[in-house]
Amino acid sequence: MSSIGVTLEDIRNAFERIRGTVKKTPVLTDEDFNEKHGRRFYFKCENMQRTGAFKIRGALNAVLSRQERGHTLKGLVAHSSGNHGRALAWVARSLGVPCEIVCPTTVPECKLADIKELGATLRSCEPTPQDRIKVTNEVMEERGFSFVPTCDDLAVIAGQGTVGLEIMEQVPALDAILVPVSGGGLAAGICIAAKAIKPDIKIYIVEPEGKELQKCLLAGERLWPNPPRCLDTVADGMRMQQLGQLTWPIVLQHAEKTVFTVTDDKAINGMRTGFQDLKLVVESAAGTVVAAAMSDQLKDLPPEIRHIGLIMCGGNVDLAHLPFL
Amino acid sequence: MSSIGVTLEDIRNAFERIRGTVKKTPVLTDEDFNEKHGRRFYFKCENMQRTGAFKIRGALNAVLSRQERGHTLKGLVAHSSGNHGRALAWVARSLGVPCEIVCPTTVPECKLADIKELGATLRSCEPTPQDRIKVTNEVMEERGFSFVPTCDDLAVIAGQGTVGLEIMEQVPALDAILVPVSGGGLAAGICIAAKAIKPDIKIYIVEPEGKELQKCLLAGERLWPNPPRCLDTVADGMRMQQLGQLTWPIVLQHAEKTVFTVTDDKAINGMRTGFQDLKLVVESAAGTVVAAAMSDQLKDLPPEIRHIGLIMCGGNVDLAHLPFL
Repeated sequence: MSSIGVTLEDIRNAFERIRGTVKKTPVLTDEDFNEKHGRRFYFKCENMQRTGAFKIRGALNAVLSRQERGHTLKGLVAHSSGNHGRALAWVARSLGVPCEIVCPTTVPECKLADIKELGATLRSCEPTPQDRIKVTNEVMEERGFSFVPTCDDLAVIAGQGTVGLEIMEQVPALDAILVPVSGGGLAAGICIAAKAIKPDIKIYIVEPEGKELQKCLLAGERLWPNPPRCLDTVADGMRMQQLGQLTWPIVLQHAEKTVFTVTDDKAINGMRTGFQDLKLVVESAAGTVVAAAMSDQLKDLPPEIRHIGLIMCGGNVDLAHLPFL
Repeated sequence: MSSIGVTLEDIRNAFERIRGTVKKTPVLTDEDFNEKHGRRFYFKCENMQRTGAFKIRGALNAVLSRQERGHTLKGLVAHSSGNHGRALAWVARSLGVPCEIVCPTTVPECKLADIKELGATLRSCEPTPQDRIKVTNEVMEERGFSFVPTCDDLAVIAGQGTVGLEIMEQVPALDAILVPVSGGGLAAGICIAAKAIKPDIKIYIVEPEGKELQKCLLAGERLWPNPPRCLDTVADGMRMQQLGQLTWPIVLQHAEKTVFTVTDDKAINGMRTGFQDLKLVVESAAGTVVAAAMSDQLKDLPPEIRHIGLIMCGGNVDLAHLPFL
């Protein structure tokens, strides 16, 4: 069964396209954590990825794909709550083209500083999905820049899917993967790669409170209120309530209907565990995944799910304002 | 040529003794760091070791060796600036024997809290080598506890040497290893293991300013002033000025005469690089090694030294008081 729009072959092609630039990130396991939580967990360290998050995989694949198809890039533009913007700024600099990143006023200062350091111009917008799009469109019209979406783009999804390709090669024994979700590019990409390689693997989505993805998955429908809104969550990389138009049907097709919903307190505690016990610098979005691994809900999974991949999506944090202190 | 007191076989025996309990820590490499600094660096992540530092290797080997020789343990005692105490407290708890740790008043609160949490009793002393020994002797006399030194003990050296055994197996191509030094247990153990496995490997010692090890190595003599004193350094795990009586001749025999001396500012910057770029939670002692890898002195090493191991000795930090913020 082929997935809507993106195939394993697309992801393999993406991997060939970006492999010289993105890192093959390590997978770590920790005996203490495994013993404490009763299964074997494998941390896929995208926090150690170039620019500090998985986002560069999708951004780079999208831009290189367009160049292959003969597009001339006058510049690049994206709206982003931080990591996608930083990734695209890196890609733009490496290609020598200008870049503007539209950032909601809620983005942490440290993420803004990193984007500026890469030579991109920042433009601020209101923290609503509508204003993000509106300001991005202005940049496209004013400057003729190419838009690279955070998630709703086939080449972006294929690029993020390389995380799934890698972890399946690094840990073939995986029975399940826990993936954090915002717009759904990473989740969709991993769904396609992992399910194509190992059809009986389970993909569990991890979401911040208020997203209500499980209700949608159970109904098989987009039940989210419109216009789209941003969530009030400590996980600054997971602010979109709705999945994208392209990512939603992929996640619906492949992911388990049971979603791990993580409160702010638990996400913060997951992040603390990342720093103090695992000695990994992880951002709060990755903290939600650590929290899901430590949850009672995980303990209730069937015992045959023994080997579990945990996607540590990013590590861009303001070390002066760690939320768990 | 056999080393004074400890052989590769002792280290292999130590490895067999402790392998079920200590972790085989990962070795990580980072393309950005390699490109920026012109060689291939391999971070041996003892910050991810059980209890957050390599110290458990030596402490556990020492205690298990004594039990094998028929010693009855009424309890365990050590003086420690933090990590050795935490390791010994862990060992004591796992064996069900009481433990007292003698800590100088300068030890960070977070390290004290971790020792207490493991059920050990804390006794405080002045931050001088003399007072550490004096108070430890009191505990031995009062309670009949067995003393486990931080470094000047053959079984401790053999235990720390398992770090060298592991990294040589994980990265056989290594041309050099940079090892941080305080009392010298880790440095001596790694010298013996690495040189026995690969005689032409270079072992470079990394020290905080004021230690003056290079002068001693060049002279082949202990030129340190007596009585022994503690250094005023940001690297709280590297406070001893003098190497031990057992570790010194081993280091003198095997290590390069060129020492990497790291100022507080550089150590703090190395720690910052660990957190921000490598996404690793490392303490300031490990920061000195990162700093050495980034130094001009390293750039001046012969070009045939291409693959360099960096020992990330520990990751026990007070996250509320990161020195680089």
